[in-house]
Amino acid sequence: MACLNPGDEIIVPEPAYANYMAFAISAGAKIRTIATSIEEGFALPKVEKFEELINERTRAIMICNPNNPTGYLYTRREMNQIRDLVKKYDLYLFSDEVYREYIYTGSPYISAMHLHGIENNTVLIDSVSKRYSECGIRIGALITKNEEIRKAVMKFCQARLSPPLIGQIVAEASLDAPESYYRDVYDEYVERRKCLIDGLNRIPGVYSPIPMGAFYTVAKLPVDDSEKFCRWCLEEFNYKGETVMMAPASGFYTTPGAGINQVRIAYVLKRKDLERALVILEKALEEYPGRVEEE
Amino acid sequence: MACLNPGDEIIVPEPAYANYMAFAISAGAKIRTIATSIEEGFALPKVEKFEELINERTRAIMICNPNNPTGYLYTRREMNQIRDLVKKYDLYLFSDEVYREYIYTGSPYISAMHLHGIENNTVLIDSVSKRYSECGIRIGALITKNEEIRKAVMKFCQARLSPPLIGQIVAEASLDAPESYYRDVYDEYVERRKCLIDGLNRIPGVYSPIPMGAFYTVAKLPVDDSEKFCRWCLEEFNYKGETVMMAPASGFYTTPGAGINQVRIAYVLKRKDLERALVILEKALEEYPGRVEEE
Repeated sequence: MACLNPGDEIIVPEPAYANYMAFAISAGAKIRTIATSIEEGFALPKVEKFEELINERTRAIMICNPNNPTGYLYTRREMNQIRDLVKKYDLYLFSDEVYREYIYTGSPYISAMHLHGIENNTVLIDSVSKRYSECGIRIGALITKNEEIRKAVMKFCQARLSPPLIGQIVAEASLDAPESYYRDVYDEYVERRKCLIDGLNRIPGVYSPIPMGAFYTVAKLPVDDSEKFCRWCLEEFNYKGETVMMAPASGFYTTPGAGINQVRIAYVLKRKDLERALVILEKALEEYPGRVEEE
Repeated sequence: MACLNPGDEIIVPEPAYANYMAFAISAGAKIRTIATSIEEGFALPKVEKFEELINERTRAIMICNPNNPTGYLYTRREMNQIRDLVKKYDLYLFSDEVYREYIYTGSPYISAMHLHGIENNTVLIDSVSKRYSECGIRIGALITKNEEIRKAVMKFCQARLSPPLIGQIVAEASLDAPESYYRDVYDEYVERRKCLIDGLNRIPGVYSPIPMGAFYTVAKLPVDDSEKFCRWCLEEFNYKGETVMMAPASGFYTTPGAGINQVRIAYVLKRKDLERALVILEKALEEYPGRVEEE
């Protein structure tokens, strides 16, 4: 609402966090999605694919890095490609980096804020939700070097009066978390990721790329329709009195039919529970009436 | 956003809470204001005045009862008048009743929810902000018997994910406040109101109606421009090292020039401080270079 006019367009690689669509519609903006595929590990599409979508109403590119739902982490080369597009067409770059502590490559993180020459185009979205497991605190931030955007956003902030007071106090206190907190959380997620991804790829017919960031993966299942499968798991299936809950990936795509056999799995459970979930998922896939064998 | 389409109109008696305008603009709705006057104690205008504004884009009437900024409390007769208009033109009635515990008439409170025959048109706005002095908690409610609106609003709620968690816990606990809490707070406001309104009307050239609800009043001052006067009080004036802060009332009007010599005063200070504020205000009005004597 601070950067775009009604009808203006934002290009978003899909699958993408579903609320981007909801909030864009609310604000009168139009999301144009650019497909990425599980076969290519959800890598960023080529420049030409972006340029096919760019027209006189295009105002922004939006990325989530590391990505929700795929866990994909943009490489230096991909970030430079985005930078060049933003610069060439004078677009905004909205970069949702709420998972940026959760990266598993060993190389330094490339933030949108690190890209030179587009400082006035970049708007970073941050939050304490993921970093300190404080989703209910409802404290986030919009960060930009563009003074005009800051002034416009401040008007919305003033209309809103204030973010939650107690949340502000909690969030500020969280900044004092010791280095050891991050290290422990990080080590835990590295373990969980290995456990989940290895386990998924051992199940016949299942495929998951190795996500390099965040705590999600999008996996392909041997099913007719993951929406139906996820519902069936909750309503009709159990293994020793337990079942698994996953997010059907189709909700993260706007292209009809895309992601129909994919699910998003969050590895926010203890490793012991993840291991049990993998056993249950394997049993569920064996029993599910809509199982489809890969061609 | 759940009830109106872009360009639809909402009739609001003015002066009105300034954020209504901001949020309506954000949502693409248009506020049409209907003037009330300090001389008539901010009573609701006649039916004809509403009907002059009603056209094919009119979708709602919005009231704040008891009123911010005027402290005005709608009478049974006025509420019936609103009910009849809502019914006749099939409008929504948005009723902001966050101050409804603060009424000083002795007669029972008439809520929009008490009006028969418009149950499906009524949307009540409530909050714990005023009732328990919990503004920073950021917990409120939208209440309606209209199931279609509830379904539409639920979509916005789901997109928002959740209100602040700790605030939810605090707000729920507040509901257990004993009867004595309300009584003490009520008695305190009755005292403060008497102290403030009597004191204001004793200052030469100042006039305030007696507000029957909330903890505000809009008073007329013998000044050229209350925006200038309020600024002057903060920047240039002091009496024994102290000054007064008030809200210029013009911000609560959309009609240009309206309320130019009015201020909104909140009586949320201790009685002792209110008494000192009245002395300071009187001194400020004596010294203010832009003082205007009533014709």
